[in-house]
Amino acid sequence: MKQLSQAKIFGGNQSVYEHASGACACDMRFAVFTPPAGEHGEGPYPVLYWLSGLTCTEENFISKAGAQRVAAELGLVVVAPDTSPRGEGVPDDPDGAYDFGLGAGFYLNATQEPWSKNYQMYDYITQELPALIDAEFSIDGSRAGIMGHSMGGHGALTIHLKNPQKFRTCSAFSPIVAPMHVPWGKKAFSNYLGTDEKTWVDYDASALVMKNPSTAEILIDQGTADNFLTEQLKPELFADAFQKSGQKLTLRMQDGYDHSYYFIASFIEDHLRWHAERLMHILPHTKEVEGELSE
Amino acid sequence: MKQLSQAKIFGGNQSVYEHASGACACDMRFAVFTPPAGEHGEGPYPVLYWLSGLTCTEENFISKAGAQRVAAELGLVVVAPDTSPRGEGVPDDPDGAYDFGLGAGFYLNATQEPWSKNYQMYDYITQELPALIDAEFSIDGSRAGIMGHSMGGHGALTIHLKNPQKFRTCSAFSPIVAPMHVPWGKKAFSNYLGTDEKTWVDYDASALVMKNPSTAEILIDQGTADNFLTEQLKPELFADAFQKSGQKLTLRMQDGYDHSYYFIASFIEDHLRWHAERLMHILPHTKEVEGELSE
Repeated sequence: MKQLSQAKIFGGNQSVYEHASGACACDMRFAVFTPPAGEHGEGPYPVLYWLSGLTCTEENFISKAGAQRVAAELGLVVVAPDTSPRGEGVPDDPDGAYDFGLGAGFYLNATQEPWSKNYQMYDYITQELPALIDAEFSIDGSRAGIMGHSMGGHGALTIHLKNPQKFRTCSAFSPIVAPMHVPWGKKAFSNYLGTDEKTWVDYDASALVMKNPSTAEILIDQGTADNFLTEQLKPELFADAFQKSGQKLTLRMQDGYDHSYYFIASFIEDHLRWHAERLMHILPHTKEVEGELSE
Repeated sequence: MKQLSQAKIFGGNQSVYEHASGACACDMRFAVFTPPAGEHGEGPYPVLYWLSGLTCTEENFISKAGAQRVAAELGLVVVAPDTSPRGEGVPDDPDGAYDFGLGAGFYLNATQEPWSKNYQMYDYITQELPALIDAEFSIDGSRAGIMGHSMGGHGALTIHLKNPQKFRTCSAFSPIVAPMHVPWGKKAFSNYLGTDEKTWVDYDASALVMKNPSTAEILIDQGTADNFLTEQLKPELFADAFQKSGQKLTLRMQDGYDHSYYFIASFIEDHLRWHAERLMHILPHTKEVEGELSE
């Protein structure tokens, strides 16, 4: 693991690292914010994973969202990985489109050639990266949450629903919630996973929640002035699925906000406080409840 | 004046505009944040001008500094212009260097060919832009302050010192304070202004403050881990000048911070509150004091 940059911000440190990823068979970059040793001591800290959207790298969230101020106050480590494998030999969309290939890994394990060698972002985010973070930073890995934006909201929702005990809390901004039914998802899934739509279900939040809702409450913020709202995001599809499944959901339609980081910056504080409260206080209680239910 | 983009953030609006500048003889861009109509009504609002540093455009501050949250709360309009003239026909550094020409206007009026036609940033910032802002937005032009970073800190200091009744309050992050004596300034001034150093004095904050200190107190934050500290910024030169001149200065050396927007983001709230307090409350009192003194 090689440190590419480090800067002090709000008393903590914002760093970017590179490491050789086995899952993605290339060098991968990720950003880590570590809070100042203050009232929260020197850790171990709860950790939040942020998954970015199409075209982003590990840089967008850390330079634009303004999360460090609140993460410093709350004593949270925040990890922001890149959105796809990269580098020489990693295949890209043949037309260089923004919505597939580089910058568009969709947080899944590709099964089709030539994508399957490198595009293993699901394993990377759920296994390889957390193991590295747990080993290298002062982290309480049992208190981990996940959040993301757009394609990264899709990643956060699907990863939480399939790993609710590993990523205990989940929230999203403007997520792709029904990728099987929208152009972005159809393009990505048909290429990465092939044309058999039965294999797509495993990466579709609206389908997953019907099979297996989590016991956590999920928070979603969606801007009403989002250009992608009606064609790509379709919150009505998952609100319906969530209701039928019994998954607890707080969906906030935010009047006049668009799809940009200006929207994320406006509400990231809510999300961080929401995760922190649950990771620090509610989870032990939830565990007890789960225990009672299983008796 | 043409609106290029608009996005809602923290209840207010972050917009970017383009207009034909007479001063710079080219199209110029600037960003404007307008706060939500809240406890501060619909204006007129105090206005703060932010001047960015080398290589920046009107975008850096608005996407990275996180100022909108506090500006929304305080009811401040924040204007962030571009850092130089641009466009076809605007000359640039012959080697494309980052520290001269495009992105490096140094907030002065160039007198030398071929720069003098377009590089009139001093007139642009002090006359043309405020006139446009006053005409187009709900602004109380008598309550205007100015701040900036690095080259923009130089701009803010020199413009305040020469126009203390127009830009009433002034603060800076990591400013170039003695451009006559450092490589960045020597290169820019010798090209824009010619080799007669007597003409440079008018754009050197440390020289200006000795001639004509303002009655305002100036706030400066400077990171101790700033790569440019010893070669380009040299706060010791101006701390000395400020002390000799009687200019009130709060200079805060911030331990471990660098020259980046991570540093700016960490302390921009302090600067906005500092300006707002003075623009809203202290100026009337200062006026009285000035009145007494002139009796």
